[in-house]
Amino acid sequence: MFTVAVLGAGVVGLTTALKILEAGYNVVVIAQLFPGDARDIRYTSNFAGANHSSMAGDDKRQFKLDMDTFDVVWKMSEPGSPTEHLFMRTPIIHYYHDPVTKPDPLADTMPEYRKLYSEELRVGATSGTYFMSVTFDVWRYLPWLYSQVLVRGGRAVRAQVQHINQVLEGAFCEKPDALAVCAGIGARTLGGVEDENVFPIRGQTILIRAPWIKQCMGGKAQPGISTYVIPRPSGDVILGGTWFHDDWYPKPKEDIHEMILEGAIKLVPELAPAEVRGSGRTPTVEDIRPLIIEAGCGLRPGRKGGLRLEKDTVEVPNCKGKQVPIVYNYGHGGQGYQSSWGSAMEAVMLLKEGFEV
Amino acid sequence: MFTVAVLGAGVVGLTTALKILEAGYNVVVIAQLFPGDARDIRYTSNFAGANHSSMAGDDKRQFKLDMDTFDVVWKMSEPGSPTEHLFMRTPIIHYYHDPVTKPDPLADTMPEYRKLYSEELRVGATSGTYFMSVTFDVWRYLPWLYSQVLVRGGRAVRAQVQHINQVLEGAFCEKPDALAVCAGIGARTLGGVEDENVFPIRGQTILIRAPWIKQCMGGKAQPGISTYVIPRPSGDVILGGTWFHDDWYPKPKEDIHEMILEGAIKLVPELAPAEVRGSGRTPTVEDIRPLIIEAGCGLRPGRKGGLRLEKDTVEVPNCKGKQVPIVYNYGHGGQGYQSSWGSAMEAVMLLKEGFEV
Amino acid sequence: MFTVAVLGAGVVGLTTALKILEAGYNVVVIAQLFPGDARDIRYTSNFAGANHSSMAGDDKRQFKLDMDTFDVVWKMSEPGSPTEHLFMRTPIIHYYHDPVTKPDPLADTMPEYRKLYSEELRVGATSGTYFMSVTFDVWRYLPWLYSQVLVRGGRAVRAQVQHINQVLEGAFCEKPDALAVCAGIGARTLGGVEDENVFPIRGQTILIRAPWIKQCMGGKAQPGISTYVIPRPSGDVILGGTWFHDDWYPKPKEDIHEMILEGAIKLVPELAPAEVRGSGRTPTVEDIRPLIIEAGCGLRPGRKGGLRLEKDTVEVPNCKGKQVPIVYNYGHGGQGYQSSWGSAMEAVMLLKEGFEV
Amino acid sequence: MFTVAVLGAGVVGLTTALKILEAGYNVVVIAQLFPGDARDIRYTSNFAGANHSSMAGDDKRQFKLDMDTFDVVWKMSEPGSPTEHLFMRTPIIHYYHDPVTKPDPLADTMPEYRKLYSEELRVGATSGTYFMSVTFDVWRYLPWLYSQVLVRGGRAVRAQVQHINQVLEGAFCEKPDALAVCAGIGARTLGGVEDENVFPIRGQTILIRAPWIKQCMGGKAQPGISTYVIPRPSGDVILGGTWFHDDWYPKPKEDIHEMILEGAIKLVPELAPAEVRGSGRTPTVEDIRPLIIEAGCGLRPGRKGGLRLEKDTVEVPNCKGKQVPIVYNYGHGGQGYQSSWGSAMEAVMLLKEGFEV
Ligand SMILES: Cc1cc2nc3c(=O)[nH]c(=O)nc-3n(C[C@H](O)[C@H](O)[C@H](O)COP(=O)(O)OP(=O)(O)OC[C@H]3O[C@@H](n4cnc5c(N)ncnc54)[C@H](O)[C@@H]3O)c2cc1C
Ligand SMILES: Cc1cc2nc3c(=O)[nH]c(=O)nc-3n(C[C@H](O)[C@H](O)[C@H](O)COP(=O)(O)OP(=O)(O)OC[C@H]3O[C@@H](n4cnc5c(N)ncnc54)[C@H](O)[C@@H]3O)c2cc1C
Ligand SMILES: Cc1cc2nc3c(=O)[nH]c(=O)nc-3n(C[C@H](O)[C@H](O)[C@H](O)COP(=O)(O)OP(=O)(O)OC[C@H]3O[C@@H](n4cnc5c(N)ncnc54)[C@H](O)[C@@H]3O)c2cc1C
Ligand SMILES: Cc1cc2nc3c(=O)[nH]c(=O)nc-3n(C[C@H](O)[C@H](O)[C@H](O)COP(=O)(O)OP(=O)(O)OC[C@H]3O[C@@H](n4cnc5c(N)ncnc54)[C@H](O)[C@@H]3O)c2cc1C
Repeated sequence: MFTVAVLGAGVVGLTTALKILEAGYNVVVIAQLFPGDARDIRYTSNFAGANHSSMAGDDKRQFKLDMDTFDVVWKMSEPGSPTEHLFMRTPIIHYYHDPVTKPDPLADTMPEYRKLYSEELRVGATSGTYFMSVTFDVWRYLPWLYSQVLVRGGRAVRAQVQHINQVLEGAFCEKPDALAVCAGIGARTLGGVEDENVFPIRGQTILIRAPWIKQCMGGKAQPGISTYVIPRPSGDVILGGTWFHDDWYPKPKEDIHEMILEGAIKLVPELAPAEVRGSGRTPTVEDIRPLIIEAGCGLRPGRKGGLRLEKDTVEVPNCKGKQVPIVYNYGHGGQGYQSSWGSAMEAVMLLKEGFEV
Repeated sequence: MFTVAVLGAGVVGLTTALKILEAGYNVVVIAQLFPGDARDIRYTSNFAGANHSSMAGDDKRQFKLDMDTFDVVWKMSEPGSPTEHLFMRTPIIHYYHDPVTKPDPLADTMPEYRKLYSEELRVGATSGTYFMSVTFDVWRYLPWLYSQVLVRGGRAVRAQVQHINQVLEGAFCEKPDALAVCAGIGARTLGGVEDENVFPIRGQTILIRAPWIKQCMGGKAQPGISTYVIPRPSGDVILGGTWFHDDWYPKPKEDIHEMILEGAIKLVPELAPAEVRGSGRTPTVEDIRPLIIEAGCGLRPGRKGGLRLEKDTVEVPNCKGKQVPIVYNYGHGGQGYQSSWGSAMEAVMLLKEGFEV
Repeated sequence: MFTVAVLGAGVVGLTTALKILEAGYNVVVIAQLFPGDARDIRYTSNFAGANHSSMAGDDKRQFKLDMDTFDVVWKMSEPGSPTEHLFMRTPIIHYYHDPVTKPDPLADTMPEYRKLYSEELRVGATSGTYFMSVTFDVWRYLPWLYSQVLVRGGRAVRAQVQHINQVLEGAFCEKPDALAVCAGIGARTLGGVEDENVFPIRGQTILIRAPWIKQCMGGKAQPGISTYVIPRPSGDVILGGTWFHDDWYPKPKEDIHEMILEGAIKLVPELAPAEVRGSGRTPTVEDIRPLIIEAGCGLRPGRKGGLRLEKDTVEVPNCKGKQVPIVYNYGHGGQGYQSSWGSAMEAVMLLKEGFEV
Repeated sequence: MFTVAVLGAGVVGLTTALKILEAGYNVVVIAQLFPGDARDIRYTSNFAGANHSSMAGDDKRQFKLDMDTFDVVWKMSEPGSPTEHLFMRTPIIHYYHDPVTKPDPLADTMPEYRKLYSEELRVGATSGTYFMSVTFDVWRYLPWLYSQVLVRGGRAVRAQVQHINQVLEGAFCEKPDALAVCAGIGARTLGGVEDENVFPIRGQTILIRAPWIKQCMGGKAQPGISTYVIPRPSGDVILGGTWFHDDWYPKPKEDIHEMILEGAIKLVPELAPAEVRGSGRTPTVEDIRPLIIEAGCGLRPGRKGGLRLEKDTVEVPNCKGKQVPIVYNYGHGGQGYQSSWGSAMEAVMLLKEGFEV
């Protein structure tokens, strides 16, 4: 039976590993960081919101990956499903400030999709949409994914790989029969991949405790940055919205922190605790400051040209010119959760094709 | 809703966490090591065989815990059950060399129980038993347990706790309303527990690849140490048997390694690959050496007086004398898997009583 | 040549290792944490102020250890010495609020020792002392110590030891000919030592940037807790003073944080930046808040009966009853830096005696 | 006073940091790995032999760097010098198999330089050279370098840098006024440097205990690979010689291990212990096998076009277009020790020029 090495243990690597295992191959996941480790800028998946709200727009490939993923997670989040608690089914409400010219592909696919009524609009928005979707409780979801890989017999090896040749030549497990590269932002500096199109899209967040929030909202409450509010099933809520290209800064910045708080309370005054909301006065940033659990920031693995999801072959070093299939699955930008299952399924297809040659 | 902190993420801690979650409480599992981490002497559960073969003998309490556990795992291992592949239903065959004077309590409880016929005896044994039971695929079973905890909304925090007061005062999560101590061998040196009765029973093992082995066997093939052979559903087989009290040595020892190999091939010549068995010659240690995957060793959490499964109350530091319930569930020796569900259920009962006071 | 295993790599373990190397033995330092690691509650030395200000009082043994250490560090801090920059020679000023009845042993030993003039007294103190001493720049001093151990050929092994038998039986290096236990607070829960007299004396601190502070001051600016201010050669200054027995809490507490700030600005208004001091108004806590670099807290390794500095012999497991010398050097409480060289020299003497038997 | 961030803590980074400190600047060394850490393929300096034996040949720049370094280390190794024991002054003997056509630039610079007499030739060599030089005891030398940086007030921060912008924007210390990049092989994948000319030259070694060896020897005892033997002052001896381009394999390979042993015993039969040498029979590989301490392998930071030692300016992100000087000092291949001081001095000159602009 073929052994496939999967490089990376973020949401993409683990989902890919799981689908490869289901396809009947042996899997070894090789990564520097795994779920359960202390949060680290080199592991983006720990910093996502995260919800499923496709931004694919015209991009047909991305849209299919997103929708294939939605099918899976909608089922997983069904009331009564054993995985229900990893998700929260929530309305997602988007507010738009610029005229919307193109038809929204989500209209035909997302449950309960509708336009917002004008009396529902906020913060100066001129239109908006409402649909049902899910949020992921990422700090439960990632270890759950990992455990599924192990339960199905997948193995895990911790290592920082300098060059993919190290994996191919068998430095971390037996020589694999194929390699899947799911290194996220690491794909830029992973030897043998070194994809210059990969760049960070920095997102800063604030985690607060506000179990009374039961819907996602996103919009422009401030010039320059957009704001979103994503509740998790645990009762924690992520406030976010920044989206800075090519910014590598690995720690929360104070000025951005304040901007996020201001945007959030403006867009979603319901964030303020009951006593404030009951008092009649307009909630301010100071009302949510005591709810803060922590600040975070992550580097979304952006890529010029979009996600790399393709196959090739690669030579095994010192092995008489032997070639093995390699599948690339990285560069998901701000969409790694919502396209995880779709891109993993596609990756397995590519892998099978690779083996068949 | 009450929050219970469970200290320890071995088979005992995770099963306990799961039963507490099922009882409707919030759970936070706090541990230094979790399933999926690199194997480490401080986490015994990764080194177990493991099968279900009660050694309770006269000890009624232990016997009940073992049998309550058996009921659960027998059901979980049922063909068609979603958890089936975490287990392998296997015959367990024990060979005895000394006269058996007491009635075997397993006779009435284990499926297909019978005495061995004299022609079935091996290595000089004078009697023996046969019954059906299960083996656990521990490297899949532990992450599965962990995922169940997460799926049910349990949280996990990685920390090495110096003293239980750190947990009680809220250093790793909100101040818990109760504490369950499932620290295994760590209970000896965990501040505030420091149970001097806890001691290691060192067990060394060898993992080999021998998917043709389909039954467990245990007996004395050599003076001094007993031998056992436990197949896992993965096709891997654990060879073991050592049982050294108060031996803390954290790595495999070479001389013991050889003794295990010799005992195993003597007791179970079927370990040799087909071509050797077909050849007619007597298999030797050299026939199984190439099958070796790795050597391991673990410290069974022994305890003078047996398992500690009891409740008490404990003061929360710097909290005006506030008391909360504490449940102890550790010291399972060589029986942590086979009594895991039974002792977890008992722990939950004790916890409920603690809350009711 | 004999090999000595030193368990612990805090200020005590490293200084001990260095003196043992100088005495001509081989040394292997075994520890879970080393200088340069991320700060961790299990490694106290990273949280010390630290200065040399003996609190030995009547305790002759402790006083000698402190003074032997002073001789060393005074020389090391001499202007022009290669190690000068690890220290800052500073005045230390203590304010006393209760009548002083006993003669101060420091009067005869510390440079420039004198009583404070009444016009120098602050915050209601009724007397005070002034002398010259040194502060240690602990985050430079610890890696420097470590490098000296390596430069002299000492080896280092990272491991969390469960029981000293693991070291003695050769799990981390060759079987050592002697063992020095320098485990600090860890001595309470280190298997085979398990010293119940060891307890934490929790100290919380705040690191600020205030290069204009050039002297240490200590006194009671608030009821209940004492306050001190210790400048480091880097220009950073430690504010501290708490001294809570049996408190294991591993993170800074907010209320204590505020108390430290208040005490510090009351005792040393000079902490405020120049523009505030120039303005004529009384400095407040808000004036130093922007200077804060980080908050910390450490567990001083207290011990009922004081420091354990003695020798014994211990049996090597599985080695035919062979005995080797063991030297204990732990439990330095709030005095680990100021007695480090003295106790290391004493430890080497004990070790030599142990070898001679 | 300017603060310079030095990225990298190998022999090059630390020596550079030291020279920058001596020039009067503040220094912060930022690196993932430091001296004293467990040996790791990402830190080449731990795997060097190392001796000073220039391979500069015609390359005038490299030759000057090597000779400037020799001046320093020859002085440091002088009998009676405080750093003497970090080095061993030894003869270095090279055997050549091919006709030597060019004049050897070492002839005029290295102490006691002479051609070998024909009766001194070995293993079929047709000519050879002899000169005095030094070997470095690398596991003492690196911590010594590090301690000198600390002693002079340099700071150290552990971090894996993804992109130099993180350093420039102040993620690990205050925003530096200049940056020195000394990342060795890491320069290939360090964001913002990503130098494709950097490639590994894999060198495998064996460390043995043979204090009777007092001279370095190098030659071709086997087809394909060259062999060298380098004694350290500790009495340990490095056997080596492999030199494989673009080979990233991070662990010792068994077949190469045997080749090294065979080459070493052939070239230097004196490696065999006294009793063998006394016995009259020809020493074999089996005679040195028991002396083996460990096998290692390192990736020399090769670079097409040679060492990068140059300056430039770089923009500080989010800082209104501010530019700061950047100095590159990496790509030393197999010459990082023997050109360390020379290239550090050159780097400081470049830095000063950078500041003056
Ligand atoms: C603030 C924020 C909000 C977000 N919100 C959403 C959202 O709502 N919905 C959504 O779909 N997405 C969201 N995202 C995006 C999502 O988080 C990412 O797309 C996703 O996490 C990328 O996952 P990954 O597995 O590709 O990368 P990572 O999670 O970064 O994992 C990379 C893995 O590769 C390993 N690796 C890399 N290089 C090496 C090497 N050389 N050697 C060994 N191991 C290596 C790492 O250790 C790690 O295990 C958000 C992101 C941020 C920052
Ligand atoms: C060779 C061998 C064969 C065996 N075969 C069998 C068998 O066939 N059947 C059977 O039933 N049993 C068997 N056992 C026994 C079984 O493995 C143990 O009884 C069981 O694993 C104990 O589990 P535990 O959860 O109590 O402890 P562990 O698995 O050791 O878990 C302890 C947990 O507590 C945590 N912890 C401890 N102290 C601290 C602290 N201070 N701070 C934070 N976390 C802490 C640890 O990190 C860990 O998460 C075998 C054991 C061995 C070694
Ligand atoms: C706020 C504060 C201020 C202070 N100010 C001063 C001062 O001004 N002057 C002064 O002299 N002192 C001061 N101290 C006290 C001083 O910091 C301590 O006395 C000293 O650091 C103790 O050093 P240690 O080496 O004994 O312990 P530690 O620094 O805690 O080192 C213990 C070592 O043992 C290792 N270890 C322990 N158990 C194990 C195990 N089981 N396995 C492996 N490794 C193990 C640890 O990993 C570590 O390496 C202060 C302390 C605090 C907290
Ligand atoms: C077998 C062998 C024998 C040798 N013999 C000799 C000899 O005899 N004489 C001689 O002169 N030379 C010899 N060498 C060569 C010498 O070892 C190297 O030239 C030298 O060690 C290179 O040092 P460096 O500081 O550039 O790199 P390294 O030692 O590899 O240090 C690189 C530093 O950069 C850090 N770093 C890199 N990237 C990052 C990042 N992204 N973030 C944070 N930190 C980062 C690393 O953590 C490390 O601290 C030998 C080498 C080998 C392998």
